[in-house]
Amino acid sequence: MSTLHSIKRSQNHLAWDNSIPPVLRIASGDVVTFDCLDASNGQITPKSTNATISSLVFSQLDQVNGPVFVEGAQPGDTLQVDVISVEVADWGWTGLIPGFGLLSDEFSDPALKIWALDRTDMVAYFDEKRKIRIPLKPFAGEMGVASGKNGAFSTIPPYNTGGNIDTKHLTAGSTLYLPVEVEGGLFSIGDGHAAQGDGGTAIETPMTVSVRLSVVKDRGYIKTPHFRTLVKESTNQRSSSSTTGGKGLRNDEYYCTTGVDPDLRTATKAAVRHMIEFLGSEHKLDRVSAYMLCSVAGDLRLHEVVDMPNYVVGMMMPQWIFVED
Amino acid sequence: MSTLHSIKRSQNHLAWDNSIPPVLRIASGDVVTFDCLDASNGQITPKSTNATISSLVFSQLDQVNGPVFVEGAQPGDTLQVDVISVEVADWGWTGLIPGFGLLSDEFSDPALKIWALDRTDMVAYFDEKRKIRIPLKPFAGEMGVASGKNGAFSTIPPYNTGGNIDTKHLTAGSTLYLPVEVEGGLFSIGDGHAAQGDGGTAIETPMTVSVRLSVVKDRGYIKTPHFRTLVKESTNQRSSSSTTGGKGLRNDEYYCTTGVDPDLRTATKAAVRHMIEFLGSEHKLDRVSAYMLCSVAGDLRLHEVVDMPNYVVGMMMPQWIFVED
Repeated sequence: MSTLHSIKRSQNHLAWDNSIPPVLRIASGDVVTFDCLDASNGQITPKSTNATISSLVFSQLDQVNGPVFVEGAQPGDTLQVDVISVEVADWGWTGLIPGFGLLSDEFSDPALKIWALDRTDMVAYFDEKRKIRIPLKPFAGEMGVASGKNGAFSTIPPYNTGGNIDTKHLTAGSTLYLPVEVEGGLFSIGDGHAAQGDGGTAIETPMTVSVRLSVVKDRGYIKTPHFRTLVKESTNQRSSSSTTGGKGLRNDEYYCTTGVDPDLRTATKAAVRHMIEFLGSEHKLDRVSAYMLCSVAGDLRLHEVVDMPNYVVGMMMPQWIFVED
Repeated sequence: MSTLHSIKRSQNHLAWDNSIPPVLRIASGDVVTFDCLDASNGQITPKSTNATISSLVFSQLDQVNGPVFVEGAQPGDTLQVDVISVEVADWGWTGLIPGFGLLSDEFSDPALKIWALDRTDMVAYFDEKRKIRIPLKPFAGEMGVASGKNGAFSTIPPYNTGGNIDTKHLTAGSTLYLPVEVEGGLFSIGDGHAAQGDGGTAIETPMTVSVRLSVVKDRGYIKTPHFRTLVKESTNQRSSSSTTGGKGLRNDEYYCTTGVDPDLRTATKAAVRHMIEFLGSEHKLDRVSAYMLCSVAGDLRLHEVVDMPNYVVGMMMPQWIFVED
């Protein structure tokens, strides 16, 4: 039996810093439920306007709830984060914040959109005439552990230890793996997203999120965030139905390695290199075979391109290509 | 009634060059079938070995078949390329070519893998024990029109006018749009791929490909390759079934804009900017709304990262978010 724990809204912090004392200590395998404000840390409300964007206090943005100390986690271990549930509020916001985002030099005026989130049908309408509807796929934009390096690191960029990785595949049912750099891991989470593309801010929203945190040994090849997603990603890849869904195929599952770097090409190369290492460790493929398999079957995704200075690129390998016995 | 035409293997060329005389003139809307050798231009055969890679004559690689002059196509127009069918040979190859590919500095030895392609079940087995199977999703890695600039441009990099865009979504049923820069467009095609990831070379193969070529006016916003894909890309995006597949939703369709540039970040920004222009022209969204829609619903893909000096990044917008009347 695992124990259930909860973390309050007020139990948050504004930097990845291994000197921040944990607010909770748990055993490996326990489940923690976090009550999280949106990424504006409550500065934006359903009544906010464009003017609110102009008056945002940046130093308060992107708070994360935690940290949680997981007993038994040692530097070199992996923290397995099973996402159990993500529940969003009945409202959300999307903002254009001057100086922030991929096209910030082309969009200089602040803008704010407040969304009504339909939690029954899990959709939000983009326009008053309800001609554009966005399916809700809630996830936490920030999940990470403390750095092994001493100091306070902003929660805005993503790191090798996770953080603001903004990876929309990390919905309920998925599993994230993070490299532990300090004793206890010191896991934190935040930045609720009701839906997200890859091009800028998401539908930001308060959320209640539950995760199971477990210590895993002997996965030294995990040096950046890896994840496994069980939801359907791409039926396209699975070809005409005769080739898929049959006995022995693992359907609907991707394993993803990432590269995190200020240079997009370096991040991309790292993502592929990490997949080669994963395929060597877990599927016993030699390096040349693993690289060839990436070439013919892996997808490259730009998971995160807006939170400077670091990009997150993912190499996603469909798992249904591996035929089970 | 459209007219059917065919282009032979021997009718190929090795540069994008608007001075190359067309091998065929057709009316807008006609269908052309191309018989194409693999991207090694026949240098690699089912009996080739690693040594063959070492002796490849690079200047003969990535030939394209054509060019085809489409009557009525003028600079500023768009050439619509409907992919009707792509048939592959019963064999293919994947190679690690020294100096070529994302991780070329880490893989210095030549390597070659010859595949048997099962065209009935549309799969290829990666290993002798048949434990890894790759679904075949054939497409042409190269589709493009001649540049408006005079001169001979290598067929290896992709350009704003297309070429080696290596975009695996362009299977039968999809439509590619290319910006016309010279009279007649001068369309060519080649580089058969039986399956491809994003990380390097594909399963390269000879192919027979049929496309319908049509001239479209008044799409001045198409300045790089755009495409529309009708195959299922991502059921993940479509959320739990209650939100999808209902009346009025365009299922399974993406519209994709691209950015083509030597700098990945510049290419990424261009892809998003082009989607904003598309949403403004075709969906009458103002710029701020269009940018926000990219933020919450668009996918960024690295379509092509190996054919230097240019990258191709795609912004893919699911079309099922647009509710029809």
